[in-house]
Amino acid sequence: MTTRPHRIAIAPSGFKESLSAARVAEAIAAGVRRVIPDAELDLVPLVDGGEGTAEALALAGGGRLVPCTATGPVGDPVSSHFALLGGPGPLTAVVEMAAVAGLALVPPDRRHPGATTTYGVGELIRAALDAGARRVLVGCGDSGTSDGGAGALQALGARLTDRHGREIRPGGGSLHELEHIDPSGLDPRLADAELLVACNPYNVLCGKRGVARVFGPQKGATPAEVELLSAGLERLAAVLTRDLAPAFAPRAGAPVDLRTAPGTGASGGLGAGLAAVGARLLPRYDVLLDGLDLDARLARADFVITAEGALDHQTVRGKIPAEVARRAQAAGIPVLVLAGTIGPGAQDVRAVGVDAYSAILPAPMTLGEAIGRSSEFLADATERAMRIMALGTRLASVAPGAPVTPVAA
Amino acid sequence: MTTRPHRIAIAPSGFKESLSAARVAEAIAAGVRRVIPDAELDLVPLVDGGEGTAEALALAGGGRLVPCTATGPVGDPVSSHFALLGGPGPLTAVVEMAAVAGLALVPPDRRHPGATTTYGVGELIRAALDAGARRVLVGCGDSGTSDGGAGALQALGARLTDRHGREIRPGGGSLHELEHIDPSGLDPRLADAELLVACNPYNVLCGKRGVARVFGPQKGATPAEVELLSAGLERLAAVLTRDLAPAFAPRAGAPVDLRTAPGTGASGGLGAGLAAVGARLLPRYDVLLDGLDLDARLARADFVITAEGALDHQTVRGKIPAEVARRAQAAGIPVLVLAGTIGPGAQDVRAVGVDAYSAILPAPMTLGEAIGRSSEFLADATERAMRIMALGTRLASVAPGAPVTPVAA
Repeated sequence: MTTRPHRIAIAPSGFKESLSAARVAEAIAAGVRRVIPDAELDLVPLVDGGEGTAEALALAGGGRLVPCTATGPVGDPVSSHFALLGGPGPLTAVVEMAAVAGLALVPPDRRHPGATTTYGVGELIRAALDAGARRVLVGCGDSGTSDGGAGALQALGARLTDRHGREIRPGGGSLHELEHIDPSGLDPRLADAELLVACNPYNVLCGKRGVARVFGPQKGATPAEVELLSAGLERLAAVLTRDLAPAFAPRAGAPVDLRTAPGTGASGGLGAGLAAVGARLLPRYDVLLDGLDLDARLARADFVITAEGALDHQTVRGKIPAEVARRAQAAGIPVLVLAGTIGPGAQDVRAVGVDAYSAILPAPMTLGEAIGRSSEFLADATERAMRIMALGTRLASVAPGAPVTPVAA
Repeated sequence: MTTRPHRIAIAPSGFKESLSAARVAEAIAAGVRRVIPDAELDLVPLVDGGEGTAEALALAGGGRLVPCTATGPVGDPVSSHFALLGGPGPLTAVVEMAAVAGLALVPPDRRHPGATTTYGVGELIRAALDAGARRVLVGCGDSGTSDGGAGALQALGARLTDRHGREIRPGGGSLHELEHIDPSGLDPRLADAELLVACNPYNVLCGKRGVARVFGPQKGATPAEVELLSAGLERLAAVLTRDLAPAFAPRAGAPVDLRTAPGTGASGGLGAGLAAVGARLLPRYDVLLDGLDLDARLARADFVITAEGALDHQTVRGKIPAEVARRAQAAGIPVLVLAGTIGPGAQDVRAVGVDAYSAILPAPMTLGEAIGRSSEFLADATERAMRIMALGTRLASVAPGAPVTPVAA
């Protein structure tokens, strides 16, 4: 039996709470090699701004991780870090919001999105400026907060007060009490530093597709809390626009409409909060894949395998497999996705260029067991998929003159 | 995008405690049609002698099911049935041992293989003879008994006694007390009727690969019970050979060595017990696929999809996917297997001709949930596998002149 092709790009996401993108890529490569030992594999582990982003960019860009302690999402100090990248140009730091305010840092019994804060994100930005960074890239994703970046602004020196002039309590649940923001204490270095936020542009702060309604429930909010959060984020947008806009005139590229501009809803609204102090909200892959030369690497491959922990209706809204599929279509190569789990709406990925996808589980088991053995399962499932592909290849080559049948869309 | 082929044979097993072979075939067909709407599908649901065999053969052969009440494996009466087949030749009955002594009829808290009996199998054989059958085909598989067919012989009129001349108690756990068998009361019609047993020839009564050691544990036996059963079955073989052989001279084709002849271990040794009264033990697929014209149908297909509830180290030992693969190799077509679960040793199926296999589960879940949704999961997994195959086909057709890479064995 013979098969083609042998130039395969492996460009996966990490599996949340389980495997880094690099380890996912290695497991897939192991599975491919069992079927095509001499395949030319090009491993391109990808990050989306969430968990693992700072480490991955430091590794890829010859930089280093700087450990530091900061305020976690529920107020306790957590061991965190940011990255300082190597290379020419202004010193660039990567602040990964998940490393200081991620959902994984919120104990399951304290998942009240109305009470968690991005205060630590502001602390990390200051620490990066202290370390000499002239450009700070903030990675969003996997957040455990919904405070619209209010905490980060407080850590950067802003005073957010209620109608009695008292500082509001931490968390999105208090934002509906916000009356005034005093920018006079803001870190003056913000005026000179370049602040970039890597966002999923599908995430917006307010409205029907606003961050409270889309992500509040999965962060643990009840329907009543979702409505309170929505109202609070509306209030925050209004006050930010009124009180910070004059003091911090939007720089070129920073959004004016803090309610619905693309990315304002990133990480529970952190995008909007940082945009109000002049940050540019950028489509995350434009920033994060910069330097990976992904398009050229896809163009050199016969096909690409990507992967994600969960393939579902959210995938097409800017997750890594959708981005890989978009670029693979441009490069003219087909796309196979391996998924830890397949959920409702997964089939939508076919419309954005995914040719085929497969689940990795071999048998009924708990999520915990699946997570614990995900590397093994991923390699085995890759092998199975490659053999099924080889079967298709074999059938095509057995009877080259036979009539072909169109595949349904 | 185009794909080949469009002539596909679908020849699956049923999924135990979940879907009949016919429903498995329908689910697979539904999944195929989502990808290749105009595929020519040839559905050949297969049975292995176990659950569903009588019904499937009655359906395929223009026969009917005859309901009857008989003694179940733990001694309580159960609603059972046998089949009377249509067609020319002597009237043929199908007695499915699982329908009266199957594991599914043994309540989980009473799974003591030392105590369960095949008495009902003997009753069903008599009922079939009462109905005018001149040939009785006994289907083995999915049994909940390990009594070497002692219960069936008792129901057919034999007396099995201990050294005090007392009838031994039901179940394999009492066989070590067997001293004598009195055949004088055996149903005289056994002398004229043709008794055929559809067996997995890998199953033998005694020795290291004997039925007690291989299947006892999965029927609920402790290690000590396994040893007691082994000794009891050895004893049974000796007494059967001594006491029944003179009275019931083996007919042409009935095995002489009741300890290790192929199929003597079928259904907890039922094969040996029936062979002692002149039954022929036949490789199950030679009997069960008779009339399905499977080989010719495979030869007309471009490839075959088969399926099994669990793909593991037992599959190569005579399970349906292994049989399909053997015949598909002879027909020169490739084989894809869809499996409810993939267990240790599944990869052995590649050595018997399976080209590729896939699991069907989309996400972590309990076995109960998986069983409840197996039809949906099977159709979805078939669709996914067909799209992966189509990807392989597409890659083969994109660059027909490109070098091919050998696939590792």
